[in-house]
Amino acid sequence: MVQNTIKRITSVKTEFTEKAQKRLDDLTKPRGSLGRLEEFAKRLVAITEEAMPVLDNKVIFTFAGDHGVVQEGVSAYPSEVTKQMVLNFLRGGAGINVLARHAGAEVVVIDIGVKGNFDEIDGLISKKIVSGTRNIRKGPAMTRSEAENCIEVGITLAEEYAKKGYRLFGTGEMGIGNTTPSSAIAAVLTGRAVSEVSGRGSGIDEDTFINKIRVIEDALRINRPKPSDPLDVLSKVGGAEIGGIAGLIIGAAANRTPVVIDGFISTAGALIAYCLEPKTKDYMFAAHNSVEKGHKAMLEKIGLDPILDLNLRLGEGTGAALAMFIIEAGLKIYKEMATFGEAGVLREMEV
Amino acid sequence: MVQNTIKRITSVKTEFTEKAQKRLDDLTKPRGSLGRLEEFAKRLVAITEEAMPVLDNKVIFTFAGDHGVVQEGVSAYPSEVTKQMVLNFLRGGAGINVLARHAGAEVVVIDIGVKGNFDEIDGLISKKIVSGTRNIRKGPAMTRSEAENCIEVGITLAEEYAKKGYRLFGTGEMGIGNTTPSSAIAAVLTGRAVSEVSGRGSGIDEDTFINKIRVIEDALRINRPKPSDPLDVLSKVGGAEIGGIAGLIIGAAANRTPVVIDGFISTAGALIAYCLEPKTKDYMFAAHNSVEKGHKAMLEKIGLDPILDLNLRLGEGTGAALAMFIIEAGLKIYKEMATFGEAGVLREMEV
Repeated sequence: MVQNTIKRITSVKTEFTEKAQKRLDDLTKPRGSLGRLEEFAKRLVAITEEAMPVLDNKVIFTFAGDHGVVQEGVSAYPSEVTKQMVLNFLRGGAGINVLARHAGAEVVVIDIGVKGNFDEIDGLISKKIVSGTRNIRKGPAMTRSEAENCIEVGITLAEEYAKKGYRLFGTGEMGIGNTTPSSAIAAVLTGRAVSEVSGRGSGIDEDTFINKIRVIEDALRINRPKPSDPLDVLSKVGGAEIGGIAGLIIGAAANRTPVVIDGFISTAGALIAYCLEPKTKDYMFAAHNSVEKGHKAMLEKIGLDPILDLNLRLGEGTGAALAMFIIEAGLKIYKEMATFGEAGVLREMEV
Repeated sequence: MVQNTIKRITSVKTEFTEKAQKRLDDLTKPRGSLGRLEEFAKRLVAITEEAMPVLDNKVIFTFAGDHGVVQEGVSAYPSEVTKQMVLNFLRGGAGINVLARHAGAEVVVIDIGVKGNFDEIDGLISKKIVSGTRNIRKGPAMTRSEAENCIEVGITLAEEYAKKGYRLFGTGEMGIGNTTPSSAIAAVLTGRAVSEVSGRGSGIDEDTFINKIRVIEDALRINRPKPSDPLDVLSKVGGAEIGGIAGLIIGAAANRTPVVIDGFISTAGALIAYCLEPKTKDYMFAAHNSVEKGHKAMLEKIGLDPILDLNLRLGEGTGAALAMFIIEAGLKIYKEMATFGEAGVLREMEV
């Protein structure tokens, strides 16, 4: 299934970008003066292959999963908080709920790897592949087939929501300890040292931070993930929610749907997707530049330029919600501004 | 009147910032993890002195004026375009109309210095102080009393809209040639060389750019504006719309109303306001980092950190509209997120 979906992904066509550029140059403003807003409009036209794309229905997928490596003392929070935060999402009280409401996007919460079971609760999408990953300091996080199943969960959601008429996707996650597998993925797939791509996550002190780097280095030594095999990397040192995000991006690309990548952990998922199929990049927008060290290295590897830089480090999809507003602003400029002819405004002089 | 308004401006009180910080630290997220959104929320609480500020009514003031210095060939557009663009604003077809609608803000268009007269038209606020400024290469742009009148126009609008219940202001402008007086102001008030604070405006070629720098240098030599006297600078090498913006900011500060400064030209107005009364800074938000060279120098002089960086160089208030959304996002986080207690989520461990 993963391979079949990947086969459907095509690069966007420059003829659409050029057509959009022509219209942008005819609007009542100096050429190029709306900078990145114009870039976003062009990309949306090329992605959707529509002259006037409509993105009104927006959705952010917040994948939740736990991490066995929390046993090694890498986080400032206990694993129970993942479950508590999922309940907070479902009640609408978390950061992602507030910002998604502000941006006019829905939030879909998926249990893909939370430790333990939820009672039947309204609104939670239950797609549990693992009940928390295993401790990567001692062995692989997941089996290869579990990792593949996580990607399939993401693909299935992308297909389903594209069919339902959602036109702009955002990624998000919740998982105590998940900056640790994300840094491990970053190290393997960018080739950088662990210390160059590891940060303080939700806020750990110096000793915990030094320990975290050692834990990741041990995990890489023990598991030997293969940089040439992204699924191997995901299964050995990744996480369920990271796999779900990778799958969502693959499914988005296969359905010509733009997808906004949130922060550090989401970008680890995006990097897995990119390494599986580089053409997925054409469908990605990088929401923001995270405080978490290592984010920039992954964005550079993919070739994405983040939209916002607001010192965020919360995840959940919060940066994606904010960036959706800016991306839509670009599209509205393209669709709603008057042309020179319509407005009776002189063009620039030939100087 | 200007002096009386300035006397009413007070610095914001840290007790309000601290109170807001306390609430932010009690919300279900790692401390400080929403970065600049938290900073914006704190500042809004301190500015308004309200525990739960309401900013629903937002307005962007787009001041229009012409510039005699256009005779010197400093712009890619003829002066007529200012008037044509004002009509475009009133019909809703310009960039600022699209982005203000997107952000839920109203646009108010003010003729403070457009060359020639408009027929009676709906929606235009007529506060004309000059019919275009005079050519600053040959003498002062305005008399001292005209410059003061421009500031008064801005103050009056701020008072009026604060009374009407508008709680968040944005600045904007339209004026062919107005990067030239803005660079002149930047050079005088930051002490930098003209070439360090001059850019290509709406898009001029190399020869025109070299000429523009020479024109500004001549204007400074001929007019000798006094850096210690901001009103002297505004009158000798400024512009009517820049004075209007300075006044709006002074009026906003006197009415404890947050004001979002758009780009390069708006920041020249903000710098005039700041030099008249540094306490105005407490009420300013810098919308974005403009492409126009010299913007950064002015922001540094005031001590503002721009919110967005999207390679914009359009003006009109477009950056301010986008930034309003981000500022409001911070406020909503502060007001709408659940606390740890409400959500039953564990706080971080003492590690």
